Amino acid sequence: MPTPDVFLVSSGMPSTSPASSPASTADFPARLAAAVSATGAPLCVGLDPDPARLPSGTTLADFSIAITESTAPFAAAFKPNLAFFEAAGLAGWQALEEVCAAVRATGRLLVLDAKRGDIDSTAARYATALFDHLGGDAATVSPYLGRDSIAPFLQHAGRCSFVLAATSNPGASDLQALDVGGEPLYRHVARLAVETGRGLPGTVGLVVGGTRPALLADLREAHPDTPFLVPGIGAQGGSIADVLSANAGGPVLVNASRSILYASPGPDFAQAAADEAARLADALRG
Amino acid sequence: MPTPDVFLVSSGMPSTSPASSPASTADFPARLAAAVSATGAPLCVGLDPDPARLPSGTTLADFSIAITESTAPFAAAFKPNLAFFEAAGLAGWQALEEVCAAVRATGRLLVLDAKRGDIDSTAARYATALFDHLGGDAATVSPYLGRDSIAPFLQHAGRCSFVLAATSNPGASDLQALDVGGEPLYRHVARLAVETGRGLPGTVGLVVGGTRPALLADLREAHPDTPFLVPGIGAQGGSIADVLSANAGGPVLVNASRSILYASPGPDFAQAAADEAARLADALRG
Repeated sequence: MPTPDVFLVSSGMPSTSPASSPASTADFPARLAAAVSATGAPLCVGLDPDPARLPSGTTLADFSIAITESTAPFAAAFKPNLAFFEAAGLAGWQALEEVCAAVRATGRLLVLDAKRGDIDSTAARYATALFDHLGGDAATVSPYLGRDSIAPFLQHAGRCSFVLAATSNPGASDLQALDVGGEPLYRHVARLAVETGRGLPGTVGLVVGGTRPALLADLREAHPDTPFLVPGIGAQGGSIADVLSANAGGPVLVNASRSILYASPGPDFAQAAADEAARLADALRG
Repeated sequence: MPTPDVFLVSSGMPSTSPASSPASTADFPARLAAAVSATGAPLCVGLDPDPARLPSGTTLADFSIAITESTAPFAAAFKPNLAFFEAAGLAGWQALEEVCAAVRATGRLLVLDAKRGDIDSTAARYATALFDHLGGDAATVSPYLGRDSIAPFLQHAGRCSFVLAATSNPGASDLQALDVGGEPLYRHVARLAVETGRGLPGTVGLVVGGTRPALLADLREAHPDTPFLVPGIGAQGGSIADVLSANAGGPVLVNASRSILYASPGPDFAQAAADEAARLADALRG
């Protein structure tokens, strides 16, 4: 078990208010373009604070907020990974709310990595949690339940739902590469997601792992204007040059988490994270 | 927006302690059999508290706990749906922890309906949240990321991970019915889940919707000893007689949520829920 002090939170009573004015109602693609042009690089900093790797004396919230503030000059977006907060229970959820507020304060995009997917009435509650309560500009969504599990997220104007198409992990091919009617399942899923979004106020995006650039090129060709969220750079081994080439200039956020968060295990972690984010942003400027 | 008083919580400060001794380390199949034999019926009561439908003056926690206590004589398990708590933010997470404690106090099984699925390092944190922190005896898991997204949940001895195979919603067939190599995807997913569990300490279960009894019969034939979680009874329209026939006596929990929770909109909601749970349990005794 992690040591208890990792989970201390910096403020006292729970707040029950939803995030105030969390996002503009401008179209997400325009806001994505603006966020990227602010730094010149489509870097997304993943916030996956692992209690076993936090510098001594820091908390989930303190660590994540310090990283957010030090890397903001180089980042277009931040992507808190909800699992790492939920694992600390109520104190973790409180830390998550504080981190979301800190990200919103930077003016960068807030992408909530939650991979939720459920029947329509439940999906609507998840969308409320992610977009209304936590104030996400975007969220990740899992497609296994089909069209009616995706549509409720797309009822939120100005927000983007990045639907999992081709992920970055080794087991991705267990299902995503299966042949369905002469094409891989991931391609079918991407088309289903994009079609589900027609006429709905939200924006459909796709999660396309950076560890398989051929799949990224394949999906980019089919969906030239769809925002892609590309994880897998850094600790997972994806190459920035290969990702940029495969993406062919489409709207994109390229995420790195562990290589930034744990650039130094010591008290200089925030500066080391900024240095790594700066290096990745340089590489992403191509 | 829901009215704020719906989100009041009954106790003050957040607790950061994980659930204490949440589950025995006996095998899940034995605990499932014991839970069912305690009432004679495999009824699982789904806790999906919708703020728009709560009786006036009740909170998420009060409502869910009253339902838990009134229906416990007829239920083998309770299934909180995390979306309905997360939608209320921090206060909702606190309510969830209170509801989980109330379920554990009944001695019935606690099934956490979260449908999480992510890369291995993230899946491990979700498993910590659900099994260690909230004390779930079981949880629902989404399979789209493949084998390494399922395995971390199965590292928890005595717990069951119900992997989504064939769900109860209208869009289920968008992906799950696709033909892969001569068989539907749901059958492939079920086999992948069961094979992933070989040699791991946790138990693999499958989510198989009650609205398509032919798929339930198909999966039961292939996996005679695998615990099934069958939602879709009641408000979603599945028939208990058809489910029992298709299940052919295999280990099962049959879930009803809305038909129990909202059996009465008035102050007699808990008694009305108990009456409906008793009726369903009778029907489930066959």
